[in-house]
Amino acid sequence: MPSTLLRQTDGDGQPRPVPDEQLEALLAVLNDVRGHGHRSRPEIIHATGLSRAVVAQRVSELLDRGLLQEGALGPSTGGRAPRQLHFRSDGGHVLAADLGATSIDVAVADLSGKVLVSLDEPADIADGPGQILARVDELFQEALSSGANVPGELWGIGLGVPGPVEFGTGRVVAPPIMPGWGEFPIRDVFTEKYGAPVWVDNDVNVMTLGELRAGVAQGHRTVLLVKIGTGIGAGIVIDGRLHRGAQGSAGDVGHIQVTHDPSVVCRCGKVGCLEALAGGAALARAATALAQSGESVLLAERLKEKGSLEAADVAWAAGRGDARSANLITDAGHLIGEMLSTAVHFLNPSLVVIGGGVANVGDQLLAAIRETVYGHSLPLATRELQVRRSGLGSRSGVVGVSTMVIDELFSLERFREWVEVGAPIGMHGLAATGG
Amino acid sequence: MPSTLLRQTDGDGQPRPVPDEQLEALLAVLNDVRGHGHRSRPEIIHATGLSRAVVAQRVSELLDRGLLQEGALGPSTGGRAPRQLHFRSDGGHVLAADLGATSIDVAVADLSGKVLVSLDEPADIADGPGQILARVDELFQEALSSGANVPGELWGIGLGVPGPVEFGTGRVVAPPIMPGWGEFPIRDVFTEKYGAPVWVDNDVNVMTLGELRAGVAQGHRTVLLVKIGTGIGAGIVIDGRLHRGAQGSAGDVGHIQVTHDPSVVCRCGKVGCLEALAGGAALARAATALAQSGESVLLAERLKEKGSLEAADVAWAAGRGDARSANLITDAGHLIGEMLSTAVHFLNPSLVVIGGGVANVGDQLLAAIRETVYGHSLPLATRELQVRRSGLGSRSGVVGVSTMVIDELFSLERFREWVEVGAPIGMHGLAATGG
Repeated sequence: MPSTLLRQTDGDGQPRPVPDEQLEALLAVLNDVRGHGHRSRPEIIHATGLSRAVVAQRVSELLDRGLLQEGALGPSTGGRAPRQLHFRSDGGHVLAADLGATSIDVAVADLSGKVLVSLDEPADIADGPGQILARVDELFQEALSSGANVPGELWGIGLGVPGPVEFGTGRVVAPPIMPGWGEFPIRDVFTEKYGAPVWVDNDVNVMTLGELRAGVAQGHRTVLLVKIGTGIGAGIVIDGRLHRGAQGSAGDVGHIQVTHDPSVVCRCGKVGCLEALAGGAALARAATALAQSGESVLLAERLKEKGSLEAADVAWAAGRGDARSANLITDAGHLIGEMLSTAVHFLNPSLVVIGGGVANVGDQLLAAIRETVYGHSLPLATRELQVRRSGLGSRSGVVGVSTMVIDELFSLERFREWVEVGAPIGMHGLAATGG
Repeated sequence: MPSTLLRQTDGDGQPRPVPDEQLEALLAVLNDVRGHGHRSRPEIIHATGLSRAVVAQRVSELLDRGLLQEGALGPSTGGRAPRQLHFRSDGGHVLAADLGATSIDVAVADLSGKVLVSLDEPADIADGPGQILARVDELFQEALSSGANVPGELWGIGLGVPGPVEFGTGRVVAPPIMPGWGEFPIRDVFTEKYGAPVWVDNDVNVMTLGELRAGVAQGHRTVLLVKIGTGIGAGIVIDGRLHRGAQGSAGDVGHIQVTHDPSVVCRCGKVGCLEALAGGAALARAATALAQSGESVLLAERLKEKGSLEAADVAWAAGRGDARSANLITDAGHLIGEMLSTAVHFLNPSLVVIGGGVANVGDQLLAAIRETVYGHSLPLATRELQVRRSGLGSRSGVVGVSTMVIDELFSLERFREWVEVGAPIGMHGLAATGG
């Protein structure tokens, strides 16, 4: 790396840490350009409040390091037209894997989070970390060698998993549907092989980051996201940032007790959990019961055809006028809406996002959730509250994971290493682990 | 003001805004010393990551402006002993008023939030803003002229009120127990008279700030506080900062619907609100019913003695073995605990604080809340969760209000005005409003 603009030595010639102030200025400039795609120097000065001299220095540093490049002339405001600066999203790439209960999705993305290659296949998370992570590794290799133009060095790797994660350590903690994964050192598997930093978070947090950076939550500061799939989980954005909680278990809302009925036993072992009544697995179970008892003729026919039922079949039957199916969905929506209403009173968000496979099967669930949230909440909390469907579709998992990796790469802590060591972040990881 | 270290001019001699970077450094130095009481320059360099030169400049600026002073020599670490810097908490004072449903508390505090004089008296918030705020003004004057040594200029004024506040405007919005206060411009009354900036927030938020800076929540990053008084409200700390929500109504949890029973009508007009079952007014009402029906002999005697019952009487009777009273408290604790359990799943705090008049009447309510929160929550969320009683006692209101004012005074936005205009913040307010 050519530049040493920011490197400083003490009186005795020893290198000393780059002051936070300078790193923050460097990141402020980089993130301003990243956030806008392209910017002129005057625009950066205006947006960051940094002085002309500091912006000039930091831009020069970032050009030297290959993270920015000079582009075309921008619009003139009277004097000489300022030159546009671009973020070099092709300055490197990241690897992302989204592990579901029954699937693996992997992708290669550039440094803007744009997915360049993606692959997916069915898998059973219960096969355990050894088998699943070996397969993730093979899919990473396949994606990297797919013939697509993968730019630059590998900067970082991310994984989303369907269970609670202690984000600081990247370890899955007491996961209800991931037998064998508890405390497994997921990061080490990839750090050693790829020599790049690895981040792990739960599927709902990465989905929330994806919506915040590239989906319907862009521009919002306080957001709740509820993912309704096999289970139910929430993601929380406060002050524009993902809130993970003291132990990283924020948003673990599927196991809130909503009934004392002892017959409602959850897969977590407790009684009356929200997801045991309103999650996708619960809807499929209830639909099967309606089919078998003959209470729903439509579902009984469907069961005969397909051999088993899932949440989507309930929506399908409801859409064809099956009253029992419609009730199942409305009841689930009301339960989720009541839980959300409590959270809306607590947090006063400007946006609630509803996502996940079950949320996407039809409009009726969203309607029931909306009705409950607005009906149960005080005027001040809901005056400008929007309740919207997730905007990212089937790639939301890998888009979210890529976003998480890039967010962490361009954070102060990680940036410090990069600036001080003066090597690409991936390469530094390699040197540090000897891998 | 003598110093112009930070003031800058453009090429054409016009003053230009002080860059955020420099203001942030100034505030970082000041807040580091404020947070520790006294600090040496090397300690500040270590804690802030700022360079020696920047710290020296900023300290000099703050000494010139009278916010820091040089103190005794600190402990030597080998070389010359570094001189200690102190925050001049006597550099000015703030006025704080805490308005309850039935009381006014006012205080004069120094810039560290230490209460120097306080006064309180009964009052009915329903008398409306004209009468109540005139009385607050009189009490401010009384406190200021009480003979206590009130240091320096007035820097700011704060009010806590028992209703929802849009913090950005300082206006009360649709308050259930503050008739006549809706949209009243509380700030203007005092800005005009005192020429100082005024902040208004609800009683629970100011209590939360007090606990965070001077009570049991010191050092915690994610905190929930529930205040159980006549009504029920919550305060939320995320990442070490009070979270007010998109419209400032975060924590408005008293009106979460916890039952569909149409006989439970809340003062807000809705059915089944938490505080209509578990707040202090609800407990007093239930106790009166138990006394009148003779179901509780103890409460019946108490009612005869006192003429009316309040929540404290329920605790009193429960403590003397009255089973019906004990049930009332346990049921209230379970309802509050269930609501808290939802919030704990959402936010994963490290601390839950229980405060307010009703929380302080005995241990039974706290025990019931604890039992429910721990019983209903997943292991990861409660592994290190503490549930504690509020630590600030009867002055928690004015301590919280003073803390709010000081937090805002030493925020980037307000500090900018102060540095750029070069006058004490209070005086600048005076000039700006012409008062």
